[in-house]
Amino acid sequence: MKFCSNCGSTVQLRVPAGDTLLRHTCVSCGSIHYENPKIVVGAIPEWEDRILLCRRAIDPRHGYWTLPAGFMENSETTAQAAARETLEEACARIEVGDMFTLINVPHISQVHIVYRARLLDLDFRPGEESLEVALFSEDEIPWDDIAFRTISLSLRRFFEDRRRGTFRFHEEDITAPPPDTI
Amino acid sequence: MKFCSNCGSTVQLRVPAGDTLLRHTCVSCGSIHYENPKIVVGAIPEWEDRILLCRRAIDPRHGYWTLPAGFMENSETTAQAAARETLEEACARIEVGDMFTLINVPHISQVHIVYRARLLDLDFRPGEESLEVALFSEDEIPWDDIAFRTISLSLRRFFEDRRRGTFRFHEEDITAPPPDTI
Repeated sequence: MKFCSNCGSTVQLRVPAGDTLLRHTCVSCGSIHYENPKIVVGAIPEWEDRILLCRRAIDPRHGYWTLPAGFMENSETTAQAAARETLEEACARIEVGDMFTLINVPHISQVHIVYRARLLDLDFRPGEESLEVALFSEDEIPWDDIAFRTISLSLRRFFEDRRRGTFRFHEEDITAPPPDTI
Repeated sequence: MKFCSNCGSTVQLRVPAGDTLLRHTCVSCGSIHYENPKIVVGAIPEWEDRILLCRRAIDPRHGYWTLPAGFMENSETTAQAAARETLEEACARIEVGDMFTLINVPHISQVHIVYRARLLDLDFRPGEESLEVALFSEDEIPWDDIAFRTISLSLRRFFEDRRRGTFRFHEEDITAPPPDTI
């Protein structure tokens, strides 16, 4: 950030009065431009014993598999975001269930939330950001080709809980940046 | 938002290629400035059968009571945010427990998260943003003077679960804007 989005003047990093952190502050109008973590929301769409994955048509991690997920938008709820992302990336309709994982990823200032969900029908196809969309049973999951660690962690917890016969909410942190993934 | 924070030119609301929503887009350098929901994190610090509340020294809701809570910062986890806010607003040290409530507030594009927490000692006092800090038993809670609906909802769920003898994670939505609170 170099310029004030309110008045167009240059910004400087300053600690505002009563604050403890450096903020981008306008030298002219005084606006303080806070930067805060972003929320990514996804779903585990279930159809009988299989779940739906999407193969990414965009960077990062082009060609790798993921759950339908993306940045939460203003004016929606986390559950609405999960349903919207599933519709956008897999053209699939779901009934959103319980929040299943919430994973902090502080080194990229993101919080990833994944819901359990029931796929309502088999009328799905790749959205603009997907190369292909398919259903996988547990032994078919392409573990070595999952796009993001928060997705593989959510999938591991899902199959662990399913084997145990009871699903619970999982809060986790992924703190160390890996060598080659976000 | 009127100016591009990257180059200082004016921005216009446009739907970028492959997107479905209007975004502030720079007419000069093409930067797209996304705006996303913010996360507010707080704690319910417990000491025996009482919990700690802070009376707000700042707007909005100056003079009203709240749990220690505030905007999550970049590079921290939700649990770290809960401990930091409790230290800042009540000068109190806590051991953060389980995530207790996650409440969507879509009309202000916020997600509020409240943790259970154990107050580690009685050495607390008002921080810069608090007028006073005090411990309350359930029958002492100033229900009519709680600052925010997400806080009173979290407190209600807390005492309900405590009476039942078991605490679980609660996901809720507050969708209708009230007449005079955020």
